[in-house]
Amino acid sequence: MFGMQCMIGRLLSCSKYTRCTSTVFRKPVIVTTEIQHRTTQTQHKEDALTTADERLVQRLYEGVVAKKRASLAEAITLVESVSRKKRALAEVLLTDILGYLRKKEQQNDGKPTSFRAGLTGPPGAGKSSFIECFGKYLTGMGHKVAVLAVDPSSSSTGGSLLGDKTRMIELSRDMNAYIRPSPTSGNMGGVTRSTNEAILLCEAAGYDVVLVETVGVGQSEYAVADMVDMFVLLIPPGGGDELQGIKKGIVEMADLIVVNKADGDLYIPAKQIQTEYISAVKLLRKKSRNWNPQVLKASSKKKDGLPEVWDVMTEFYKTMVTTGEMKNRRAVQHKIWMWNHIKDNILKLFKNHPAVKPQIASLESKVAKAVITPGLAADVLLNEFVKSTQTDDKSKS
Amino acid sequence: MFGMQCMIGRLLSCSKYTRCTSTVFRKPVIVTTEIQHRTTQTQHKEDALTTADERLVQRLYEGVVAKKRASLAEAITLVESVSRKKRALAEVLLTDILGYLRKKEQQNDGKPTSFRAGLTGPPGAGKSSFIECFGKYLTGMGHKVAVLAVDPSSSSTGGSLLGDKTRMIELSRDMNAYIRPSPTSGNMGGVTRSTNEAILLCEAAGYDVVLVETVGVGQSEYAVADMVDMFVLLIPPGGGDELQGIKKGIVEMADLIVVNKADGDLYIPAKQIQTEYISAVKLLRKKSRNWNPQVLKASSKKKDGLPEVWDVMTEFYKTMVTTGEMKNRRAVQHKIWMWNHIKDNILKLFKNHPAVKPQIASLESKVAKAVITPGLAADVLLNEFVKSTQTDDKSKS
Repeated sequence: MFGMQCMIGRLLSCSKYTRCTSTVFRKPVIVTTEIQHRTTQTQHKEDALTTADERLVQRLYEGVVAKKRASLAEAITLVESVSRKKRALAEVLLTDILGYLRKKEQQNDGKPTSFRAGLTGPPGAGKSSFIECFGKYLTGMGHKVAVLAVDPSSSSTGGSLLGDKTRMIELSRDMNAYIRPSPTSGNMGGVTRSTNEAILLCEAAGYDVVLVETVGVGQSEYAVADMVDMFVLLIPPGGGDELQGIKKGIVEMADLIVVNKADGDLYIPAKQIQTEYISAVKLLRKKSRNWNPQVLKASSKKKDGLPEVWDVMTEFYKTMVTTGEMKNRRAVQHKIWMWNHIKDNILKLFKNHPAVKPQIASLESKVAKAVITPGLAADVLLNEFVKSTQTDDKSKS
Repeated sequence: MFGMQCMIGRLLSCSKYTRCTSTVFRKPVIVTTEIQHRTTQTQHKEDALTTADERLVQRLYEGVVAKKRASLAEAITLVESVSRKKRALAEVLLTDILGYLRKKEQQNDGKPTSFRAGLTGPPGAGKSSFIECFGKYLTGMGHKVAVLAVDPSSSSTGGSLLGDKTRMIELSRDMNAYIRPSPTSGNMGGVTRSTNEAILLCEAAGYDVVLVETVGVGQSEYAVADMVDMFVLLIPPGGGDELQGIKKGIVEMADLIVVNKADGDLYIPAKQIQTEYISAVKLLRKKSRNWNPQVLKASSKKKDGLPEVWDVMTEFYKTMVTTGEMKNRRAVQHKIWMWNHIKDNILKLFKNHPAVKPQIASLESKVAKAVITPGLAADVLLNEFVKSTQTDDKSKS
């Protein structure tokens, strides 16, 4: 992943060629090669794009923008890869895709060409069946719907309590819907990064509604909230204790709350919960100056309430676009993604820093024997790091 | 917090004087001053301990080991402080306290002189009332009980849904119990660090049972599990949906599960839940080779089941001490704490690194405008950092 300066140099210089899109990865090679040679002569050979690589990226790019499902699937698999070489190819492809999306946005009067909604909720809220129904409803109206799932538990804790089920059967048969399960490799950070990138690929493949589902455990809701334009919280029509399990922070993040399963015996409880939440959201800190969170009820079983949910989403979309808030939110989110990627990798780099590495073993041993406190040992290592940084500074100036 | 090399140098050299305890911070000054002078001449003056500082640390140390409540409270306030000067004083005090605890442990045939138990559970499990009852039961048997709370939500999300209540009134009046609420300043990392350090102070003040309570939201359970010898999960006798809200990871971490509120109408449901969990824990991955997680039921209201809980805890303690697993666990935990402290601070240092800092603004702007992907921008910064590290390496060799 690191040490691929050659590739990075090429991609960065691409930014000067804003609209070169699909040919972006060929031209700037000459521009940067000289500089890169000095620092990474050894890595140069293995990181350089071969003709076969260029053809692969070109083929995937053309397939995605031609809305081919197979190319989209292959492109998402590429961005999910953890191999350094494949990550480098993925970056070339994604830089092209970004160029294509920018062009599409410019042709659309500068407005986003897609709507990204995140869906979360406690277990039992019926997220999957809601997405199945709602997805069908949207494709019925002519939309192209992509569904992406974020489930870090499938990799880090070995599966959720509920286990895997065959899900969204009908929607997965729909040619205007594309369903992609959560990547199973890697940590939360890896899952987040590849989901962010999969969103871009789906948009380039013409999906105008992207639904990102989270399993609602751990930190996945926070990660998803930073990926989407609108954050939707689904809740079951259960009792007080059940709802106390929903973290307050999650309710505050919601732009829309949907009380699901509002049918049969649960219709009355669902209505009560709706009323309670309508009062509750008024007391919460507002996330946006331009939007008051809405509370609706719906039934996936009876297919009730779906038009109302889409109406609120459409209203939200219009408000966010006209006020410019959507563009700002996305710009802020992109920066958050960048820092999240850094956070996921920085510790590994710290541990290998020449000022830090030689001291780790001895400090760990002192800490394990309770000779010094863990806090003090941490300060020592951080301090060594800062000192080396300051010395570098002086030698350069 | 950083740049206090002088202080750190003094403390590190203390480790050579393993048993000097209360005079530890005076003698080694001369040993390290020369080396420190070279790197931190400017900071030397402000970081040096004044006579007043030394007297304060000495007074707190003597007060804590003399089991004075007021000194313990003052010492915990000192370790909770975020001011750099006070943190430095706290480190001097804690290094002394560690020396004192090591001496006590040696006098106790090398066995730990305290038992640390963490308590977690979903809202509605009745954690506070259980701790109140259980704490009274333990003090009644002659134990000294410290109760510490970890509640990062009180600072980061502005309070839990349940709100604050006057809690543990009876226990707080007990002279053999010491209750300390969660520090309100700072992030999760800060809360974790000061709780870790408060545990040590309580132990030095003669508290042989330390109960650490978590509110059970976000990541606090994971933080507490790494602080304690035994991790106890309290659950309410509720239905299936309610229990699905408990993350599987939390159940796997538990050494003991207590079904609380097993009284009146809830006695039968509690018994059922107990049976279910007895089957469930057999299917889970085992945390320890020497211990099978137990499932008990209790009633805080009727004061039922408390002796059984303590019996299991005592059995656990004996098993862990005789097998040596407790010592190993604590050693591993101390290292985890060290790395947690580092994680909490490393990003700030990365951002200020001379190879990274000048590039941040331009990359953030490109990312915000969707010219390059957040992942690529992150790679560029990480790459610059690694490159500067490698160059340093070469210039040194």
